[in-house]
Amino acid sequence: MQVTGKILEVRKIISSARAEGKRIGFVPTMGALHEGHLSLIKAAGADCDFVAVSIFVNPIQFVPGEDYEQYPRPIEDDIEKSRRAGVSLLFNPSVDEMYPQEQLTRVYVKKLTENLCGRFREGHFEGVTTVVTKLFNIVQPDISYFGQKDAQQALVIKRMVADLNMPIEIKIRPTIRERDGLAMSSRNQYLNEAQRKQACCLYQALCDAREMIRSGEKKSEHIIKRMSDIIKNAGPCEIDYISIVDTETIEDVEQINKPVLIALAVKIGPARLIDNVIVDSNGNDVIIT
Amino acid sequence: MQVTGKILEVRKIISSARAEGKRIGFVPTMGALHEGHLSLIKAAGADCDFVAVSIFVNPIQFVPGEDYEQYPRPIEDDIEKSRRAGVSLLFNPSVDEMYPQEQLTRVYVKKLTENLCGRFREGHFEGVTTVVTKLFNIVQPDISYFGQKDAQQALVIKRMVADLNMPIEIKIRPTIRERDGLAMSSRNQYLNEAQRKQACCLYQALCDAREMIRSGEKKSEHIIKRMSDIIKNAGPCEIDYISIVDTETIEDVEQINKPVLIALAVKIGPARLIDNVIVDSNGNDVIIT
Repeated sequence: MQVTGKILEVRKIISSARAEGKRIGFVPTMGALHEGHLSLIKAAGADCDFVAVSIFVNPIQFVPGEDYEQYPRPIEDDIEKSRRAGVSLLFNPSVDEMYPQEQLTRVYVKKLTENLCGRFREGHFEGVTTVVTKLFNIVQPDISYFGQKDAQQALVIKRMVADLNMPIEIKIRPTIRERDGLAMSSRNQYLNEAQRKQACCLYQALCDAREMIRSGEKKSEHIIKRMSDIIKNAGPCEIDYISIVDTETIEDVEQINKPVLIALAVKIGPARLIDNVIVDSNGNDVIIT
Repeated sequence: MQVTGKILEVRKIISSARAEGKRIGFVPTMGALHEGHLSLIKAAGADCDFVAVSIFVNPIQFVPGEDYEQYPRPIEDDIEKSRRAGVSLLFNPSVDEMYPQEQLTRVYVKKLTENLCGRFREGHFEGVTTVVTKLFNIVQPDISYFGQKDAQQALVIKRMVADLNMPIEIKIRPTIRERDGLAMSSRNQYLNEAQRKQACCLYQALCDAREMIRSGEKKSEHIIKRMSDIIKNAGPCEIDYISIVDTETIEDVEQINKPVLIALAVKIGPARLIDNVIVDSNGNDVIIT
Protein backbone atom coordinates (compact mmCIF):
# COMPACT_ATOMS: atom_id res chain seq x y z
CA MET A 1 0.00 0.00 0.00
CA GLN A 2 1.29 3.43 -0.93
CA VAL A 3 0.54 6.29 1.46
CA THR A 4 0.86 9.91 0.40
CA GLY A 5 -0.47 13.31 1.30
CA LYS A 6 0.58 14.86 -2.02
CA ILE A 7 -1.74 15.43 -4.96
CA LEU A 8 1.06 15.19 -7.55
CA GLU A 9 2.11 11.87 -6.08
CA VAL A 10 -1.46 10.56 -6.34
CA ARG A 11 -1.62 11.65 -9.97
CA LYS A 12 1.61 9.77 -10.72
CA ILE A 13 0.54 6.59 -8.93
CA ILE A 14 -2.91 6.58 -10.52
CA SER A 15 -1.48 7.36 -13.93
CA SER A 16 0.83 4.34 -13.84
CA ALA A 17 -1.97 2.11 -12.50
CA ARG A 18 -4.11 3.24 -15.41
CA ALA A 19 -1.24 2.66 -17.86
CA GLU A 20 -1.27 -0.93 -16.64
CA GLY A 21 -4.94 -1.10 -17.61
CA LYS A 22 -6.17 -1.16 -14.03
CA ARG A 23 -9.71 -0.24 -13.08
CA ILE A 24 -9.63 2.34 -10.27
CA GLY A 25 -12.07 2.17 -7.34
CA PHE A 26 -12.21 5.06 -4.89
CA VAL A 27 -13.57 5.39 -1.35
CA PRO A 28 -13.45 8.96 -0.04
CA THR A 29 -13.61 9.09 3.79
CA MET A 30 -12.95 11.37 6.73
CA GLY A 31 -11.02 8.55 8.42
CA ALA A 32 -11.70 6.95 11.79
CA LEU A 33 -12.40 3.92 9.65
CA HIS A 34 -15.04 1.44 10.84
CA GLU A 35 -16.82 -1.57 9.38
CA GLY A 36 -18.94 0.70 7.22
CA HIS A 37 -15.90 2.10 5.44
CA LEU A 38 -14.36 -1.34 5.23
CA SER A 39 -17.44 -2.68 3.46
CA LEU A 40 -17.03 0.08 0.85
CA ILE A 41 -13.35 -0.83 0.44
CA LYS A 42 -14.33 -4.46 0.08
CA ALA A 43 -16.90 -3.61 -2.59
CA ALA A 44 -14.26 -1.56 -4.42
CA GLY A 45 -11.83 -4.46 -4.22
CA ALA A 46 -14.41 -6.80 -5.73
CA ASP A 47 -15.06 -4.51 -8.73
CA CYS A 48 -11.64 -2.96 -9.32
CA ASP A 49 -7.95 -3.78 -9.68
CA PHE A 50 -6.78 -0.77 -7.72
CA VAL A 51 -8.46 0.68 -4.62
CA ALA A 52 -7.74 4.25 -3.56
CA VAL A 53 -8.96 5.57 -0.21
CA SER A 54 -8.78 9.18 0.88
CA ILE A 55 -8.78 10.31 4.48
CA PHE A 56 -9.49 14.00 4.81
CA VAL A 57 -11.45 15.76 7.53
CA ASN A 58 -12.79 18.44 5.23
CA PRO A 59 -13.13 21.75 7.07
CA ILE A 60 -15.53 23.34 4.56
CA GLN A 61 -18.25 20.75 5.16
CA PHE A 62 -18.43 21.52 8.88
CA VAL A 63 -20.77 24.28 9.93
CA PRO A 64 -19.45 26.73 12.56
CA GLY A 65 -19.98 25.24 16.02
CA GLU A 66 -19.81 21.66 14.78
CA ASP A 67 -17.21 19.04 15.67
CA TYR A 68 -14.46 19.83 13.15
CA GLU A 69 -11.81 20.14 15.86
CA GLN A 70 -13.01 17.13 17.87
CA TYR A 71 -13.50 14.83 14.89
CA PRO A 72 -11.37 11.71 15.53
CA ARG A 73 -8.14 11.42 13.52
CA PRO A 74 -6.58 8.05 14.42
CA ILE A 75 -4.35 8.07 11.35
CA GLU A 76 -1.97 5.23 12.36
CA ASP A 77 -4.92 2.98 13.08
CA ASP A 78 -6.54 3.96 9.77
CA ILE A 79 -3.37 3.19 7.84
CA GLU A 80 -3.19 -0.24 9.46
CA LYS A 81 -6.86 -0.99 8.74
CA SER A 82 -6.46 0.15 5.13
CA ARG A 83 -3.40 -2.01 4.66
CA ARG A 84 -5.20 -5.05 6.02
CA ALA A 85 -8.20 -4.30 3.80
CA GLY A 86 -6.00 -4.47 0.69
CA VAL A 87 -6.08 -0.77 -0.19
CA SER A 88 -3.59 0.12 -2.95
CA LEU A 89 -3.28 3.84 -2.27
CA LEU A 90 -4.09 5.84 0.84
CA PHE A 91 -4.29 9.59 0.23
CA ASN A 92 -4.24 11.64 3.42
CA PRO A 93 -3.66 15.25 2.41
CA SER A 94 -3.25 18.20 4.75
CA VAL A 95 -5.74 21.06 4.69
CA ASP A 96 -3.06 23.18 2.98
CA GLU A 97 -2.59 20.57 0.28
CA MET A 98 -6.31 20.54 -0.48
CA TYR A 99 -6.86 24.28 0.00
CA PRO A 100 -3.58 26.04 -0.86
CA GLN A 101 -5.49 29.26 -1.47
CA GLU A 102 -8.99 30.49 -0.73
CA GLN A 103 -11.44 28.00 -2.22
CA LEU A 104 -13.35 30.48 -4.38
CA THR A 105 -14.85 27.77 -6.58
CA ARG A 106 -17.79 25.84 -5.21
CA VAL A 107 -19.99 23.05 -6.49
CA TYR A 108 -23.52 22.87 -5.17
CA VAL A 109 -26.66 20.90 -5.86
CA LYS A 110 -29.96 22.71 -5.59
CA LYS A 111 -33.22 21.25 -4.25
CA LEU A 112 -31.85 17.86 -3.13
CA THR A 113 -29.86 19.66 -0.42
CA GLU A 114 -32.70 21.78 0.93
CA ASN A 115 -34.41 19.20 3.13
CA LEU A 116 -33.16 16.83 5.88
CA CYS A 117 -29.56 17.56 6.92
CA GLY A 118 -29.35 20.46 4.44
CA ARG A 119 -31.98 22.25 6.49
CA PHE A 120 -29.90 22.03 9.68
CA ARG A 121 -26.34 22.21 8.36
CA GLU A 122 -26.21 25.24 6.10
CA GLY A 123 -23.38 24.96 3.58
CA HIS A 124 -22.58 21.37 4.58
CA PHE A 125 -23.50 19.78 1.27
CA GLU A 126 -21.75 22.50 -0.73
CA GLY A 127 -18.63 21.60 1.25
CA VAL A 128 -19.16 17.93 0.47
CA THR A 129 -19.83 18.31 -3.25
CA THR A 130 -16.90 20.71 -3.60
CA VAL A 131 -14.39 18.43 -1.89
CA VAL A 132 -15.69 15.32 -3.63
CA THR A 133 -15.31 17.07 -7.00
CA LYS A 134 -11.73 17.94 -6.07
CA LEU A 135 -11.00 14.37 -4.94
CA PHE A 136 -12.59 12.94 -8.10
CA ASN A 137 -10.39 15.22 -10.22
CA ILE A 138 -7.31 14.17 -8.27
CA VAL A 139 -7.97 10.41 -8.21
CA GLN A 140 -9.97 10.13 -11.46
CA PRO A 141 -11.56 6.83 -10.45
CA ASP A 142 -13.76 4.61 -12.60
CA ILE A 143 -16.09 3.86 -9.70
CA SER A 144 -16.58 5.58 -6.35
CA TYR A 145 -18.36 4.14 -3.33
CA PHE A 146 -20.63 5.77 -0.76
CA GLY A 147 -22.59 4.38 2.17
CA GLN A 148 -26.36 4.51 2.39
CA LYS A 149 -25.98 5.67 5.99
CA ASP A 150 -25.41 9.13 4.51
CA ALA A 151 -28.29 8.66 2.09
CA GLN A 152 -28.83 12.29 1.23
CA GLN A 153 -25.12 12.75 0.58
CA ALA A 154 -25.06 9.68 -1.67
CA LEU A 155 -28.09 10.86 -3.67
CA VAL A 156 -26.67 14.38 -3.96
CA ILE A 157 -23.36 13.02 -5.26
CA LYS A 158 -25.11 10.73 -7.72
CA ARG A 159 -26.98 13.75 -9.05
CA MET A 160 -23.83 15.86 -9.18
CA VAL A 161 -22.02 13.22 -11.21
CA ALA A 162 -24.93 12.97 -13.67
CA ASP A 163 -25.44 16.74 -13.93
CA LEU A 164 -21.76 17.50 -14.46
CA ASN A 165 -21.14 14.51 -16.80
CA MET A 166 -18.37 13.24 -14.56
CA PRO A 167 -16.96 10.06 -16.12
CA ILE A 168 -17.45 8.12 -12.89
CA GLU A 169 -19.86 5.47 -11.69
CA ILE A 170 -21.27 5.95 -8.18
CA LYS A 171 -22.18 2.89 -6.16
CA ILE A 172 -24.15 3.13 -2.93
CA ARG A 173 -23.66 0.32 -0.42
CA PRO A 174 -25.92 -0.69 2.49
CA THR A 175 -25.51 0.72 5.97
CA ILE A 176 -23.44 -1.45 8.30
CA ARG A 177 -24.85 -1.73 11.81
CA GLU A 178 -23.76 -2.70 15.30
CA ARG A 179 -25.47 -5.75 16.83
CA ASP A 180 -28.17 -3.61 18.42
CA GLY A 181 -28.87 -1.90 15.11
CA LEU A 182 -26.98 1.36 15.64
CA ALA A 183 -25.56 2.48 12.28
CA MET A 184 -21.77 2.48 12.30
CA SER A 185 -20.41 6.02 12.46
CA SER A 186 -17.14 7.63 13.44
CA ARG A 187 -19.21 9.88 15.67
CA ASN A 188 -20.54 6.97 17.78
CA GLN A 189 -17.36 7.20 19.83
CA TYR A 190 -18.56 10.54 21.22
CA LEU A 191 -21.22 8.60 23.19
CA ASN A 192 -20.83 7.48 26.81
CA GLU A 193 -22.20 4.12 27.87
CA ALA A 194 -25.72 5.30 28.65
CA GLN A 195 -25.93 7.40 25.50
CA ARG A 196 -24.64 4.47 23.46
CA LYS A 197 -27.48 2.30 24.76
CA GLN A 198 -29.99 5.02 24.10
CA ALA A 199 -28.66 5.54 20.56
CA CYS A 200 -30.17 2.34 19.21
CA CYS A 201 -33.54 4.10 19.41
CA LEU A 202 -32.87 5.60 15.96
CA TYR A 203 -32.89 2.25 14.23
CA GLN A 204 -35.72 1.01 16.44
CA ALA A 205 -37.82 3.95 15.29
CA LEU A 206 -36.94 3.22 11.65
CA CYS A 207 -37.85 -0.46 12.04
CA ASP A 208 -41.10 0.51 13.68
CA ALA A 209 -41.87 2.87 10.79
CA ARG A 210 -41.22 0.09 8.33
CA GLU A 211 -43.51 -2.21 10.28
CA MET A 212 -46.28 0.38 10.25
CA ILE A 213 -46.02 0.69 6.46
CA ARG A 214 -46.07 -3.09 6.16
CA SER A 215 -49.25 -3.08 8.23
CA GLY A 216 -50.85 -0.68 5.76
CA GLU A 217 -50.17 2.75 7.28
CA LYS A 218 -49.73 5.28 4.46
CA LYS A 219 -49.79 8.58 6.32
CA SER A 220 -46.32 9.96 6.99
CA GLU A 221 -47.68 12.10 9.81
CA HIS A 222 -48.79 9.05 11.83
CA ILE A 223 -45.51 7.27 11.29
CA ILE A 224 -43.42 10.29 12.20
CA LYS A 225 -45.47 10.79 15.37
CA ARG A 226 -44.81 7.22 16.43
CA MET A 227 -41.09 7.48 15.61
CA SER A 228 -40.85 10.70 17.57
CA ASP A 229 -42.44 9.00 20.61
CA ILE A 230 -39.92 6.14 20.41
CA ILE A 231 -36.99 8.56 20.25
CA LYS A 232 -38.26 10.76 23.07
CA ASN A 233 -39.06 7.79 25.32
CA ALA A 234 -35.53 6.45 24.92
CA GLY A 235 -33.98 9.32 26.85
CA PRO A 236 -32.86 12.94 26.69
CA CYS A 237 -32.14 14.08 23.16
CA GLU A 238 -32.76 16.77 20.58
CA ILE A 239 -34.48 15.75 17.37
CA ASP A 240 -33.27 17.73 14.31
CA TYR A 241 -35.74 16.01 12.03
CA ILE A 242 -37.71 12.85 11.41
CA SER A 243 -38.78 12.90 7.76
CA ILE A 244 -40.29 10.74 5.09
CA VAL A 245 -39.19 11.95 1.67
CA ASP A 246 -39.27 11.06 -1.99
CA THR A 247 -36.06 9.17 -2.87
CA GLU A 248 -35.58 11.23 -6.02
CA THR A 249 -36.54 14.75 -5.01
CA ILE A 250 -35.87 14.52 -1.23
CA GLU A 251 -39.16 16.36 -0.78
CA ASP A 252 -41.49 15.50 2.08
CA VAL A 253 -44.10 12.91 1.21
CA GLU A 254 -47.49 13.01 2.95
CA GLN A 255 -48.95 9.78 1.57
CA ILE A 256 -46.65 6.84 1.02
CA ASN A 257 -47.44 5.52 -2.46
CA LYS A 258 -43.93 5.14 -3.90
CA PRO A 259 -40.46 4.39 -2.54
CA VAL A 260 -39.53 6.68 0.32
CA LEU A 261 -36.49 7.52 2.33
CA ILE A 262 -37.29 7.53 6.03
CA ALA A 263 -34.55 9.54 7.66
CA LEU A 264 -33.81 11.11 11.01
CA ALA A 265 -31.16 13.13 12.78
CA VAL A 266 -31.02 13.14 16.56
CA LYS A 267 -28.56 14.74 18.94
CA ILE A 268 -27.75 12.50 21.89
CA GLY A 269 -25.26 14.13 24.22
CA PRO A 270 -22.28 15.33 22.15
CA ALA A 271 -23.18 13.28 19.07
CA ARG A 272 -25.46 14.20 16.21
CA LEU A 273 -26.57 10.84 14.83
CA ILE A 274 -28.30 10.15 11.53
CA ASP A 275 -29.87 7.02 10.12
CA ASN A 276 -32.36 5.97 7.47
CA VAL A 277 -34.13 3.18 5.67
CA ILE A 278 -35.54 3.13 2.16
CA VAL A 279 -38.76 1.22 1.61
CA ASP A 280 -41.44 0.94 -1.02
CA SER A 281 -45.12 1.65 -0.35
CA ASN A 282 -45.55 -1.88 1.04
CA GLY A 283 -42.69 -1.45 3.48
CA ASN A 284 -40.31 -3.70 1.58
CA ASP A 285 -36.69 -2.65 1.70
CA VAL A 286 -35.50 -0.96 -1.46
CA ILE A 287 -31.88 -1.46 -2.39
CA ILE A 288 -30.40 1.67 -3.90
CA THR A 289 -27.13 1.19 -5.69
CA MET B 1 -13.20 15.56 -39.06
CA GLN B 2 -15.82 13.77 -37.00
CA VAL B 3 -19.00 15.68 -36.17
CA THR B 4 -21.35 14.53 -33.44
CA GLY B 5 -23.97 15.90 -31.09
CA LYS B 6 -23.82 12.90 -28.77
CA ILE B 7 -21.86 12.79 -25.52
CA LEU B 8 -21.35 9.03 -25.64
CA GLU B 9 -19.94 9.33 -29.14
CA VAL B 10 -17.49 12.01 -27.96
CA ARG B 11 -16.38 9.75 -25.11
CA LYS B 12 -15.72 6.91 -27.57
CA ILE B 13 -13.81 9.07 -30.03
CA ILE B 14 -11.70 10.72 -27.34
CA SER B 15 -11.07 7.41 -25.65
CA SER B 16 -9.63 5.89 -28.81
CA ALA B 17 -7.58 9.02 -29.54
CA ARG B 18 -6.16 8.75 -26.05
CA ALA B 19 -5.48 5.05 -26.50
CA GLU B 20 -3.33 6.06 -29.47
CA GLY B 21 -1.36 8.28 -27.10
CA LYS B 22 -2.73 11.49 -28.54
CA ARG B 23 -2.66 14.77 -26.64
CA ILE B 24 -6.13 16.33 -26.67
CA GLY B 25 -6.64 20.06 -27.17
CA PHE B 26 -10.09 21.56 -26.66
CA VAL B 27 -11.68 24.83 -27.76
CA PRO B 28 -15.17 25.35 -26.32
CA THR B 29 -17.20 27.88 -28.33
CA MET B 30 -20.73 29.09 -28.93
CA GLY B 31 -20.14 28.85 -32.68
CA ALA B 32 -20.41 31.62 -35.26
CA LEU B 33 -16.71 31.00 -35.59
CA HIS B 34 -14.45 33.93 -36.46
CA GLU B 35 -10.71 34.57 -36.61
CA GLY B 36 -10.56 34.70 -32.82
CA HIS B 37 -11.84 31.13 -32.52
CA LEU B 38 -9.63 30.03 -35.39
CA SER B 39 -6.54 31.37 -33.61
CA LEU B 40 -7.47 29.23 -30.59
CA ILE B 41 -7.90 26.19 -32.84
CA LYS B 42 -4.54 26.94 -34.44
CA ALA B 43 -2.86 27.18 -31.02
CA ALA B 44 -4.45 23.85 -30.06
CA GLY B 45 -3.22 22.29 -33.27
CA ALA B 46 0.32 23.48 -32.56
CA ASP B 47 0.34 21.92 -29.05
CA CYS B 48 -1.78 18.81 -29.52
CA ASP B 49 -2.32 15.79 -31.75
CA PHE B 50 -6.11 15.96 -31.59
CA VAL B 51 -8.22 19.11 -31.54
CA ALA B 52 -11.78 19.01 -30.27
CA VAL B 53 -14.09 21.99 -30.70
CA SER B 54 -17.52 22.31 -29.13
CA ILE B 55 -20.27 24.53 -30.48
CA PHE B 56 -23.02 25.04 -27.95
CA VAL B 57 -25.07 28.15 -27.37
CA ASN B 58 -25.46 27.57 -23.66
CA PRO B 59 -28.85 28.79 -22.43
CA ILE B 60 -27.89 28.95 -18.75
CA GLN B 61 -25.21 31.59 -19.32
CA PHE B 62 -27.67 34.04 -20.84
CA VAL B 63 -29.48 36.34 -18.47
CA PRO B 64 -33.23 36.83 -19.11
CA GLY B 65 -33.69 39.52 -21.76
CA GLU B 66 -30.34 38.83 -23.41
CA ASP B 67 -29.73 37.56 -26.93
CA TYR B 68 -30.04 33.78 -26.42
CA GLU B 69 -32.66 33.45 -29.16
CA GLN B 70 -30.95 35.84 -31.58
CA TYR B 71 -27.45 34.49 -31.09
CA PRO B 72 -26.16 33.44 -34.54
CA ARG B 73 -26.06 29.69 -35.26
CA PRO B 74 -24.49 29.28 -38.73
CA ILE B 75 -23.74 25.60 -38.16
CA GLU B 76 -22.95 24.59 -41.76
CA ASP B 77 -20.51 27.46 -42.07
CA ASP B 78 -18.94 26.56 -38.70
CA ILE B 79 -18.50 22.95 -39.75
CA GLU B 80 -16.77 24.04 -42.93
CA LYS B 81 -14.48 26.47 -41.08
CA SER B 82 -13.61 23.80 -38.51
CA ARG B 83 -12.83 21.28 -41.21
CA ARG B 84 -10.54 23.72 -42.98
CA ALA B 85 -8.85 24.58 -39.66
CA GLY B 86 -7.91 20.92 -39.13
CA VAL B 87 -10.28 20.20 -36.25
CA SER B 88 -10.44 16.47 -35.42
CA LEU B 89 -13.77 16.41 -33.60
CA LEU B 90 -16.64 18.89 -33.68
CA PHE B 91 -19.13 18.42 -30.84
CA ASN B 92 -22.40 20.29 -31.40
CA PRO B 93 -24.87 18.96 -28.84
CA SER B 94 -28.51 19.94 -28.51
CA VAL B 95 -29.77 21.63 -25.37
CA ASP B 96 -31.50 18.35 -24.44
CA GLU B 97 -28.25 16.44 -24.80
CA MET B 98 -26.47 18.83 -22.44
CA TYR B 99 -29.40 19.31 -20.06
CA PRO B 100 -31.51 16.13 -20.18
CA GLN B 101 -32.97 17.01 -16.79
CA GLU B 102 -33.04 20.10 -14.62
CA GLN B 103 -29.44 21.22 -14.05
CA LEU B 104 -29.53 21.13 -10.26
CA THR B 105 -25.75 21.09 -9.94
CA ARG B 106 -23.90 24.33 -10.41
CA VAL B 107 -20.29 25.40 -10.30
CA TYR B 108 -19.54 28.97 -9.33
CA VAL B 109 -16.50 31.07 -8.53
CA LYS B 110 -16.83 33.67 -5.81
CA LYS B 111 -15.21 37.13 -5.81
CA LEU B 112 -13.69 36.99 -9.32
CA THR B 113 -17.22 37.06 -10.75
CA GLU B 114 -18.51 39.97 -8.69
CA ASN B 115 -17.05 42.85 -10.69
CA LEU B 116 -17.10 43.77 -14.42
CA CYS B 117 -19.54 41.61 -16.43
CA GLY B 118 -20.55 39.70 -13.30
CA ARG B 119 -22.05 42.90 -11.95
CA PHE B 120 -24.28 43.33 -15.00
CA ARG B 121 -25.04 39.75 -16.00
CA GLU B 122 -26.24 38.02 -12.84
CA GLY B 123 -25.76 34.27 -13.08
CA HIS B 124 -23.80 34.52 -16.33
CA PHE B 125 -20.52 33.23 -14.97
CA GLU B 126 -22.21 30.44 -13.02
CA GLY B 127 -23.70 29.34 -16.34
CA VAL B 128 -20.26 29.49 -17.95
CA THR B 129 -18.37 27.62 -15.23
CA THR B 130 -21.12 25.00 -15.04
CA VAL B 131 -21.16 24.28 -18.77
CA VAL B 132 -17.37 24.38 -19.07
CA THR B 133 -17.11 21.84 -16.24
CA LYS B 134 -19.58 19.62 -18.10
CA LEU B 135 -17.67 20.00 -21.37
CA PHE B 136 -14.35 19.31 -19.64
CA ASN B 137 -15.81 16.13 -18.13
CA ILE B 138 -17.13 15.06 -21.52
CA VAL B 139 -14.03 15.84 -23.60
CA GLN B 140 -11.38 15.35 -20.88
CA PRO B 141 -8.79 17.42 -22.71
CA ASP B 142 -5.16 17.89 -21.75
CA ILE B 143 -5.23 21.57 -22.65
CA SER B 144 -8.13 23.96 -23.22
CA TYR B 145 -7.92 27.34 -24.94
CA PHE B 146 -9.70 30.61 -24.18
CA GLY B 147 -9.44 34.06 -25.71
CA GLN B 148 -8.29 37.11 -23.77
CA LYS B 149 -11.19 39.02 -25.30
CA ASP B 150 -13.29 37.42 -22.57
CA ALA B 151 -10.61 38.15 -19.99
CA GLN B 152 -12.78 37.78 -16.90
CA GLN B 153 -14.13 34.47 -18.19
CA ALA B 154 -10.62 33.20 -18.87
CA LEU B 155 -9.39 34.20 -15.40
CA VAL B 156 -12.46 32.69 -13.76
CA ILE B 157 -11.94 29.40 -15.59
CA LYS B 158 -8.25 29.34 -14.73
CA ARG B 159 -9.19 29.75 -11.08
CA MET B 160 -11.92 27.09 -11.31
CA VAL B 161 -9.48 24.59 -12.77
CA ALA B 162 -6.95 25.29 -10.02
CA ASP B 163 -9.53 25.28 -7.20
CA LEU B 164 -11.19 22.06 -8.35
CA ASN B 165 -7.91 20.29 -9.22
CA MET B 166 -9.10 19.65 -12.75
CA PRO B 167 -6.35 17.78 -14.61
CA ILE B 168 -6.36 20.32 -17.42
CA GLU B 169 -4.06 23.12 -18.52
CA ILE B 170 -5.73 26.39 -19.50
CA LYS B 171 -4.10 28.57 -22.12
CA ILE B 172 -5.23 32.12 -22.78
CA ARG B 173 -4.56 33.52 -26.23
CA PRO B 174 -4.46 37.16 -27.37
CA THR B 175 -7.52 38.97 -28.67
CA ILE B 176 -7.82 38.98 -32.44
CA ARG B 177 -8.92 42.33 -33.89
CA GLU B 178 -10.39 43.75 -37.07
CA ARG B 179 -8.21 46.23 -38.97
CA ASP B 180 -9.69 49.19 -37.13
CA GLY B 181 -9.03 47.51 -33.78
CA LEU B 182 -12.52 46.18 -33.02
CA ALA B 183 -12.16 42.91 -31.13
CA MET B 184 -13.55 39.97 -33.10
CA SER B 185 -16.85 38.80 -31.67
CA SER B 186 -19.79 36.82 -32.93
CA ARG B 187 -21.94 39.70 -31.70
CA ASN B 188 -20.31 42.24 -34.04
CA GLN B 189 -22.71 41.09 -36.75
CA TYR B 190 -25.58 42.67 -34.79
CA LEU B 191 -24.14 46.09 -35.75
CA ASN B 192 -25.30 48.16 -38.72
CA GLU B 193 -22.75 50.11 -40.73
CA ALA B 194 -22.78 53.24 -38.60
CA GLN B 195 -22.68 51.24 -35.36
CA ARG B 196 -19.86 49.15 -36.73
CA LYS B 197 -17.82 52.30 -37.38
CA GLN B 198 -18.66 53.64 -33.95
CA ALA B 199 -17.69 50.34 -32.30
CA CYS B 200 -13.96 50.85 -32.77
CA CYS B 201 -14.19 53.47 -30.01
CA LEU B 202 -13.81 50.66 -27.43
CA TYR B 203 -10.32 49.81 -28.56
CA GLN B 204 -9.47 53.47 -29.12
CA ALA B 205 -10.37 54.16 -25.50
CA LEU B 206 -8.24 51.22 -24.35
CA CYS B 207 -5.26 52.41 -26.42
CA ASP B 208 -5.68 55.88 -25.05
CA ALA B 209 -5.73 54.49 -21.50
CA ARG B 210 -2.54 52.62 -22.20
CA GLU B 211 -0.92 55.78 -23.56
CA MET B 212 -1.90 57.71 -20.44
CA ILE B 213 -0.26 55.09 -18.24
CA ARG B 214 2.83 55.16 -20.42
CA SER B 215 2.89 58.92 -19.92
CA GLY B 216 2.93 58.44 -16.16
CA GLU B 217 -0.75 58.67 -15.21
CA LYS B 218 -1.40 56.37 -12.23
CA LYS B 219 -4.89 57.39 -11.16
CA SER B 220 -7.59 55.07 -12.49
CA GLU B 221 -10.20 57.77 -12.03
CA HIS B 222 -8.50 60.09 -14.53
CA ILE B 223 -8.03 57.34 -17.08
CA ILE B 224 -11.60 56.12 -16.78
CA LYS B 225 -12.91 59.69 -17.20
CA ARG B 226 -10.93 60.07 -20.43
CA MET B 227 -12.08 56.66 -21.73
CA SER B 228 -15.67 57.53 -20.94
CA ASP B 229 -15.35 60.77 -22.93
CA ILE B 230 -13.96 58.90 -25.92
CA ILE B 231 -16.82 56.38 -25.84
CA LYS B 232 -19.52 59.02 -25.42
CA ASN B 233 -18.10 61.24 -28.15
CA ALA B 234 -18.14 58.35 -30.61
CA GLY B 235 -21.93 58.20 -30.71
CA PRO B 236 -25.05 56.99 -28.91
CA CYS B 237 -24.36 54.12 -26.56
CA GLU B 238 -24.87 52.80 -23.05
CA ILE B 239 -21.78 52.16 -20.96
CA ASP B 240 -22.14 49.17 -18.61
CA TYR B 241 -18.73 49.73 -17.10
CA ILE B 242 -15.25 51.06 -17.71
CA SER B 243 -13.00 49.56 -15.03
CA ILE B 244 -9.38 49.16 -14.09
CA VAL B 245 -8.95 46.07 -11.94
CA ASP B 246 -6.32 43.85 -10.38
CA THR B 247 -5.58 40.94 -12.75
CA GLU B 248 -5.71 38.44 -9.90
CA THR B 249 -8.60 39.59 -7.74
CA ILE B 250 -10.62 41.51 -10.40
CA GLU B 251 -11.08 44.20 -7.77
CA ASP B 252 -11.05 47.87 -8.72
CA VAL B 253 -7.64 49.49 -8.49
CA GLU B 254 -7.38 53.21 -7.63
CA GLN B 255 -3.63 53.65 -8.14
CA ILE B 256 -1.93 51.71 -10.90
CA ASN B 257 1.19 50.20 -9.34
CA LYS B 258 0.96 46.61 -10.58
CA PRO B 259 -0.46 44.84 -13.66
CA VAL B 260 -4.05 45.80 -14.33
CA LEU B 261 -6.87 44.69 -16.55
CA ILE B 262 -8.51 47.66 -18.21
CA ALA B 263 -11.91 46.45 -19.32
CA LEU B 264 -15.12 47.89 -20.61
CA ALA B 265 -18.58 46.85 -21.74
CA VAL B 266 -20.61 49.14 -23.96
CA LYS B 267 -23.97 48.65 -25.58
CA ILE B 268 -24.09 50.03 -29.10
CA GLY B 269 -27.46 49.48 -30.71
CA PRO B 270 -28.42 45.81 -30.33
CA ALA B 271 -24.89 44.67 -29.40
CA ARG B 272 -23.28 44.57 -25.99
CA LEU B 273 -19.56 44.75 -26.76
CA ILE B 274 -16.67 44.05 -24.42
CA ASP B 275 -12.95 44.55 -24.77
CA ASN B 276 -9.84 44.86 -22.61
CA VAL B 277 -6.11 45.26 -22.44
CA ILE B 278 -3.74 44.12 -19.72
CA VAL B 279 -0.79 46.37 -18.93
CA ASP B 280 1.77 46.79 -16.19
CA SER B 281 2.22 50.00 -14.21
CA ASN B 282 4.37 51.43 -17.00
CA GLY B 283 1.72 50.77 -19.62
CA ASN B 284 3.57 47.87 -21.21
CA ASP B 285 1.37 45.09 -22.51
CA VAL B 286 1.27 42.06 -20.26
CA ILE B 287 0.84 38.72 -21.94
CA ILE B 288 -1.34 36.41 -19.88
CA THR B 289 -1.25 32.78 -20.88
